[in-house]
Amino acid sequence: MTSIYETRVRDLRNVLRDHQLDGFIIPRGDEHLGEYVANSSERLAFISGFTGSAGLAIVLLNRAVVFSDGRYALQLESETDPAVWERLHMIETPPEAWLKEQAAGLRIGYDPRLISADALKKFEAETLYPVIKNPVDEIWADRPAAPTAPALPHDLRFAGEDAGAKRARLAQTLAKEGQDAALLTDPASVAWLFNLRGGDVPFTPVALSFAILHADASATLFIAAAKLSDELRLHLGNAVEIAEPDRMEEVLARFAGKTVRYDPATMPVWFKTNLEDAGAIIAAKSDPVSLPRAIKNTTEQDGARAAHLRDGVAMVRFLAWLAKVAPLGRETEVSAAERLLEYRRRGAFFKGESFPAISGAGEHGAIIHYRVNPQSNRPLNPDEVYLIDSGAQYSDGTTDVTRTVWTGPSAAPQVIKEHVTRVLAGHIAISAAVFPEGVAGSHLDALARMALWQEGLDYDHGTGHGVGSYLSVHEGPAGISRAAKPVPLQEGMILSNEPGYYLPGAYGIRLENLELVKPAHFPGGTKKFLCFETLTLAPFDRALIDASMLSTQALRWLNQYHSRVSEVLSPLLTGPDDDFAREWLKAATAAI
Amino acid sequence: MTSIYETRVRDLRNVLRDHQLDGFIIPRGDEHLGEYVANSSERLAFISGFTGSAGLAIVLLNRAVVFSDGRYALQLESETDPAVWERLHMIETPPEAWLKEQAAGLRIGYDPRLISADALKKFEAETLYPVIKNPVDEIWADRPAAPTAPALPHDLRFAGEDAGAKRARLAQTLAKEGQDAALLTDPASVAWLFNLRGGDVPFTPVALSFAILHADASATLFIAAAKLSDELRLHLGNAVEIAEPDRMEEVLARFAGKTVRYDPATMPVWFKTNLEDAGAIIAAKSDPVSLPRAIKNTTEQDGARAAHLRDGVAMVRFLAWLAKVAPLGRETEVSAAERLLEYRRRGAFFKGESFPAISGAGEHGAIIHYRVNPQSNRPLNPDEVYLIDSGAQYSDGTTDVTRTVWTGPSAAPQVIKEHVTRVLAGHIAISAAVFPEGVAGSHLDALARMALWQEGLDYDHGTGHGVGSYLSVHEGPAGISRAAKPVPLQEGMILSNEPGYYLPGAYGIRLENLELVKPAHFPGGTKKFLCFETLTLAPFDRALIDASMLSTQALRWLNQYHSRVSEVLSPLLTGPDDDFAREWLKAATAAI
Repeated sequence: MTSIYETRVRDLRNVLRDHQLDGFIIPRGDEHLGEYVANSSERLAFISGFTGSAGLAIVLLNRAVVFSDGRYALQLESETDPAVWERLHMIETPPEAWLKEQAAGLRIGYDPRLISADALKKFEAETLYPVIKNPVDEIWADRPAAPTAPALPHDLRFAGEDAGAKRARLAQTLAKEGQDAALLTDPASVAWLFNLRGGDVPFTPVALSFAILHADASATLFIAAAKLSDELRLHLGNAVEIAEPDRMEEVLARFAGKTVRYDPATMPVWFKTNLEDAGAIIAAKSDPVSLPRAIKNTTEQDGARAAHLRDGVAMVRFLAWLAKVAPLGRETEVSAAERLLEYRRRGAFFKGESFPAISGAGEHGAIIHYRVNPQSNRPLNPDEVYLIDSGAQYSDGTTDVTRTVWTGPSAAPQVIKEHVTRVLAGHIAISAAVFPEGVAGSHLDALARMALWQEGLDYDHGTGHGVGSYLSVHEGPAGISRAAKPVPLQEGMILSNEPGYYLPGAYGIRLENLELVKPAHFPGGTKKFLCFETLTLAPFDRALIDASMLSTQALRWLNQYHSRVSEVLSPLLTGPDDDFAREWLKAATAAI
Repeated sequence: MTSIYETRVRDLRNVLRDHQLDGFIIPRGDEHLGEYVANSSERLAFISGFTGSAGLAIVLLNRAVVFSDGRYALQLESETDPAVWERLHMIETPPEAWLKEQAAGLRIGYDPRLISADALKKFEAETLYPVIKNPVDEIWADRPAAPTAPALPHDLRFAGEDAGAKRARLAQTLAKEGQDAALLTDPASVAWLFNLRGGDVPFTPVALSFAILHADASATLFIAAAKLSDELRLHLGNAVEIAEPDRMEEVLARFAGKTVRYDPATMPVWFKTNLEDAGAIIAAKSDPVSLPRAIKNTTEQDGARAAHLRDGVAMVRFLAWLAKVAPLGRETEVSAAERLLEYRRRGAFFKGESFPAISGAGEHGAIIHYRVNPQSNRPLNPDEVYLIDSGAQYSDGTTDVTRTVWTGPSAAPQVIKEHVTRVLAGHIAISAAVFPEGVAGSHLDALARMALWQEGLDYDHGTGHGVGSYLSVHEGPAGISRAAKPVPLQEGMILSNEPGYYLPGAYGIRLENLELVKPAHFPGGTKKFLCFETLTLAPFDRALIDASMLSTQALRWLNQYHSRVSEVLSPLLTGPDDDFAREWLKAATAAI
């Protein structure tokens, strides 16, 4: 039987032959190069069947290969047809190396809207051919329409700064740096700059769109008219020209002789080529929204605190419920995640999840990017480790929290408690850190790992990422990771703090709170110091903590945190069924 | 009265006019751009009087300005004539910015042998003119002759790897990277590669020289014949061509069409220009010796351990003596430093100090780069803090150790003990760190500071630098500093661990040991982990430690370290006057 993917690849090859191409590169991203893409841009899934968030396919006339990384190795095997696709690990065999070796001298095409200038550079770019009409789209008969979810204003009481003021502030930067305009291709940057939110992709409330900010603080917003309400048009005002995205090329042509800021790391090379063809001068610099967006103003900070109160109530109701039902063994990964979502839905301003919940029992918890589905779903058994990493979008803030619990009813084995307590010690070391201005997350990462390193243990992911304000739950430019470029932490940034430990085939541990960077005041100090205010409010499972392993200071931090969680959330547990949750919270947060 | 500097600047201006120059840049470095320079290259001191290790002068026809940094602000004021020189802070007013503003359109000369390609780039290089014959030398009538200290073989029992094997090993790297040859301009690189040592500059046992390593493992060594003994010629062997340094230009001209590795950060631009003029292709990469030199082989590691035993004996004799005499108030900063040097001289293989000792009582200790001299010398008073940072060159290793002691006889004030204990906590956090391969010193720096940061305190210097093996006490490329490029720590590297705290006008604290990077073994581990072996052996002053502020683990580390110091050094304290030192050591290292 011919699989649909065999047919699709055959059809694609026919199109490639028509174009005189020997092959074509199909990345996973869309023209915004972000984390989530609309169904209409799921070309990699269409052609290969692979649905993971990191992947790339190369179709030659006689071979087809699809790459992903270690996180998705099993998924790649199960989702793709081995009769059609060779499956490769993109770290061990980088696509650019594979292409260089396997396709030397061939005419390989790529879609310049789907690859950044920096990513293209990694290939021997001179051997590749830009193709304007994507050949995959030619064979994709039932391609979904591009999403047209309504774009709405993001209210000033949540945004805290008027869009005009934001444009004026950024325009000053452009003018100071001698740039006539800046290109924006990240819909989250567009959303932040214009104080608008949308619903075109899952989990991140953005409207797929582009923009150009001019040095005089006016702007052009490229967005499908179908998404625009009168309310949004009014909100955008006269200084913002609105254009259909397909007018981009025409507008870029106006920049002859002008200097345009363009980020080669995050923006499709198509824009660079068009600007250069138009005679514009490229100022290769980061997206100008990236840093200002990461620094939350006081309204956004207050919003984050308020959102975390509601999220904390949902978490406590969930954890209390879980403590009751988990030892019975009748719940599953799916039912637990649904229950938590249900509790979150009750909160004011709830808009949806901020990412697909990771609900992993036992060995599933050790799969760092585990995504539960009906096939993988399994019961939460008594006496095992259960990890749940989830978050929500509220109009006033985005949340992201991970707790690891012992399902009971027996006591947890000492070895598991030791692993959890080492992860907790690292989590606390970050949370309690104080540091001068100029220090970056890359300088703090070791604090989160030292308790594990002391035993030769570690975790293969960063310690923390930036989090948006009712925007993307994964946001740059700051993070807590040695791999990242050191970006100094600044007052108002929100970062996750999520060390972990994973024993493959057995269990996974991750403990995650969001932390707000705020000033630390010392009498008579001359240097400016910063510290973290923990936003997330939810108890850590006492059943998994060996208090004797914690330093006096760390134990004091834990008890103070728990006491704060209890004091702040108890008065909010006033629902008809909250008696149990309140009692549970009291016990869960008692001093150790 | 006309000062000699007024005369010299006037004479220099006359020479500049002869050369049709409007000004000339006089950096502090010589053609090796290293830390110490020979008297014959002290052009900055000759023209300005300033003798600090960081400085640069610019002489225009009507103005003369000399720059240094905050460490040398007072020294700059006192050593230079305000009637001749404007004195500026090179961080607040970078020379390149000053020149751009104050000398626009003028014809400014520089000596291309005394500035790196990268440093030159910071200036608007197109406005500067290379001058081959340095105008300062033209007016320097009594310029000392270049040093001609004998260069001698560094014995294989100390070096651990034959020079031919080193050349073969590095030549492989060159060949692999497609380089025909590599230039070496750092005398410490030359010393390491050829297993030779010299005495041309103070404190670092190098012979001023250059070299070219060829991809076939042969080499050309540019060194004055006056420094060469028959023994060294024999040691170098036939694969090493020997040439006078003034033949450099002629030899570089042989590289037409060849690819030559050149480090634009550390090598004079003169070499780059000559290579390019000769038609060579420049491969801009780091000095190929830099990393191999930092990774000590097992012979060098054993040598370091042995050298630290002798250095530890000297330190204990010194500290014991100090404990006896300090409360009497009859010693001075100079007499104490001389006493320590005297004890060191008794050790086998002692060659000299590895840097000028920093011997700072009370407020002098707060001057991070304090250098005692007859003018600044002051008594060690009873009941104050005394800081001594010193080190030695032994044939088998280089040492660098700092201790901070309370002179007594009264108990130290609690506030000082708190500061010292926070510094000690940071020192121990580094010493006890365990970390996977790939981690750099920049990732560990925060560990050393966190106990201080928690109180809004910090120190304005790096936590640690690399240390050579009977070579430079300050050696790249690895260090423990956020400012440095992250260079992963590797087994065999030796780094200093020296957090501090300075209260200007009152006292300075610094606690420094050298640490050897070695593997940390964990049963069943898959990742390679590293940790530190502390080389330095000397007690920390118990009078300044508040044990109640240390974590259980930190206190355990301290007691274990002290017990090791006592066990290892006691049996070596067998001199006629060592009874007191042995008794003192026992008490100084008793468990807290």
